Amino acid sequence: MSSAAWLPAPEILRSRLDRAAEAAGAAGLDALLITPGSDLRYLTGAVGGSFERLTCLVLAADGTATLVVPKLEFPGYRDVLVDDLGVQAATWVDGENPAKLVAGLLSNPKRVGVSDFTPALHVFGLRDALVDVEQHLAGPVIGQLRMRKDASEIEALREAGAAIDRVHARMAEFLRAGRTENEVAADIAAAIVEEGHTRAEFVIVGSGSNGASPHHSASDRVIEQGDVVVIDIGGPVAAGYNSDSTRVYAVGTPRDADVANTYAVLQEAQAAAVNAVRPGITAEEVDQAARQVIAAAGFGDYFIHRTGHGIGLDVHEDPYIVDGNAIPLEAGMAFSVEPGIYQPGRWGARIEDIVVVTADGVESMNNQPHELVVLGE
Amino acid sequence: MSSAAWLPAPEILRSRLDRAAEAAGAAGLDALLITPGSDLRYLTGAVGGSFERLTCLVLAADGTATLVVPKLEFPGYRDVLVDDLGVQAATWVDGENPAKLVAGLLSNPKRVGVSDFTPALHVFGLRDALVDVEQHLAGPVIGQLRMRKDASEIEALREAGAAIDRVHARMAEFLRAGRTENEVAADIAAAIVEEGHTRAEFVIVGSGSNGASPHHSASDRVIEQGDVVVIDIGGPVAAGYNSDSTRVYAVGTPRDADVANTYAVLQEAQAAAVNAVRPGITAEEVDQAARQVIAAAGFGDYFIHRTGHGIGLDVHEDPYIVDGNAIPLEAGMAFSVEPGIYQPGRWGARIEDIVVVTADGVESMNNQPHELVVLGE
Repeated sequence: MSSAAWLPAPEILRSRLDRAAEAAGAAGLDALLITPGSDLRYLTGAVGGSFERLTCLVLAADGTATLVVPKLEFPGYRDVLVDDLGVQAATWVDGENPAKLVAGLLSNPKRVGVSDFTPALHVFGLRDALVDVEQHLAGPVIGQLRMRKDASEIEALREAGAAIDRVHARMAEFLRAGRTENEVAADIAAAIVEEGHTRAEFVIVGSGSNGASPHHSASDRVIEQGDVVVIDIGGPVAAGYNSDSTRVYAVGTPRDADVANTYAVLQEAQAAAVNAVRPGITAEEVDQAARQVIAAAGFGDYFIHRTGHGIGLDVHEDPYIVDGNAIPLEAGMAFSVEPGIYQPGRWGARIEDIVVVTADGVESMNNQPHELVVLGE
Repeated sequence: MSSAAWLPAPEILRSRLDRAAEAAGAAGLDALLITPGSDLRYLTGAVGGSFERLTCLVLAADGTATLVVPKLEFPGYRDVLVDDLGVQAATWVDGENPAKLVAGLLSNPKRVGVSDFTPALHVFGLRDALVDVEQHLAGPVIGQLRMRKDASEIEALREAGAAIDRVHARMAEFLRAGRTENEVAADIAAAIVEEGHTRAEFVIVGSGSNGASPHHSASDRVIEQGDVVVIDIGGPVAAGYNSDSTRVYAVGTPRDADVANTYAVLQEAQAAAVNAVRPGITAEEVDQAARQVIAAAGFGDYFIHRTGHGIGLDVHEDPYIVDGNAIPLEAGMAFSVEPGIYQPGRWGARIEDIVVVTADGVESMNNQPHELVVLGE
């Protein structure tokens, strides 16, 4: 179920393991217990999901690392257990209790960090095997590392951004009056793969009033002449890093007379937030940069979500660009800037780029025009 | 993020909610806390995954049901909160603690059941908000319901089985000497969608010695003349129910002289297990039926996994067809029968059908021939 499609160099992975172990110790954790998912991929290169059989990297605060893995699934992990990485394997077979195997690897632990997306099934198994051991989230520890991308990670985000830009550039092929959102979404999903992603992770086609619901996906609604359509799409490239970009299209001249003026406010807000990004500014200040423009124009009540989310091996990860997050931005942090204005029952708009903080400013991974794109004229 | 692509009738869903609540009470649980995933889809029809924002169905043992959901994501769940279902919504916005909202819905709870695949992130949030409340797995409760499929669920499994059979029937289009496993897998993935699945959930192409690793996925290995190739594929249809079928192909005459005789043993074992299935026989007896044939032929050490797993909204669910599982089979139970024989370093074979227990025997969802298929002759 797991194979290393794109494996970072062993010295990069070993450095991540060492820094994670050190950060765990600094946080008062005796070990990190990491099940398959983005954290495990980040630390070891191993690709895969969590199933009913426990696979778990036991990373002690002293840097000792052991992968507890079903014997059956071990071949898929063999590539990541190279000598340079210094990760040992401890295999188990059906009938054994793998959580007890984990417990046996730790010497008198008091507090462990469990990866954020470990299923309850395994959380409780580990809880019952590690009697009187406090379970905390590993996310705050590993998130600190994952939030600061290295050059190879930024290159992967650049590749993903260019791939999703190519899909947006082809939108006239897919988006026409008379087609359903689902039909358009299916074509876009195929194009996402054609343009270099390993899969389409999400395809939002929000036409007309559906565009006013930020988390609408796609439906059987037939797109009509005059509709404003929000297209929010993305997926991972081979290295596992994700794209995520939103543009707004009009199918012919927009039906609603307020679209042009409102959209101009949104475009100004998105640009203001992107231009605010540089080392030292806080995440919430970026949120404010967008929010102030929208509020000043009287649309504050129609911007109903945070301005952005970090992105990398997960589509949503630290840092969140939201009121209350006072973390100062640093070079290498990557996140979306995606303010929106939603007119309930009529139409909505959102403009989204992925940006990376550079040494003295910002680099955008997405470079399609930000204007409202009018199709079919 | 969530939409009801295929929504069971409200009376079916309400019956599932009532039976789940009753089973929770009988298990000593005050409530079930169900986050997005197959359990939530089974109970309410809601499709979706678990993200960093908590969505949670709070199903009290008295049948009271409330969906705690981010206001932003509520529109995607509106379809499932119909009057007939009697599920209330409690929305929350960023900055609020949704776990406290969950806690406020329960009156003096002592023990709750949390869905098996709820992420640790939410398990710990609920733990901290529900002070001194024991957390158990909801899986054993809901699994008892989900294990016994109704007529509409079996029809969906039949549809999925026929769809994956059509992909196997087209294997000569994809599988040829000189192509890599990954190239073959990409074509198969496209065919899985073309033949009626909503996505390819997994595609195993195990050629030559890779076939000897049961959980090998696909690789850059170039398929050679004489290779034996294990093809294990599946995915969900619109209703959410999964296919999963394995067949073995030879690219030209098999290189290894022992293939024909060994394969004949495997085919006999798989047929013996399928023919053993009927109400009243236990899961482990089905496992034994396959295992005995293989062991008697001297290949016992090369059959290194259980005989099968239940299937439905999840690819792996109850009942597991494994030594130690003494559950008596009942009409409506659905599972794989997939013995394998693996010759390390040389080749492997596995034959897999999904079967459903009927009133007096068994129905196979997969009906492609079970013989070794020799291609390119």
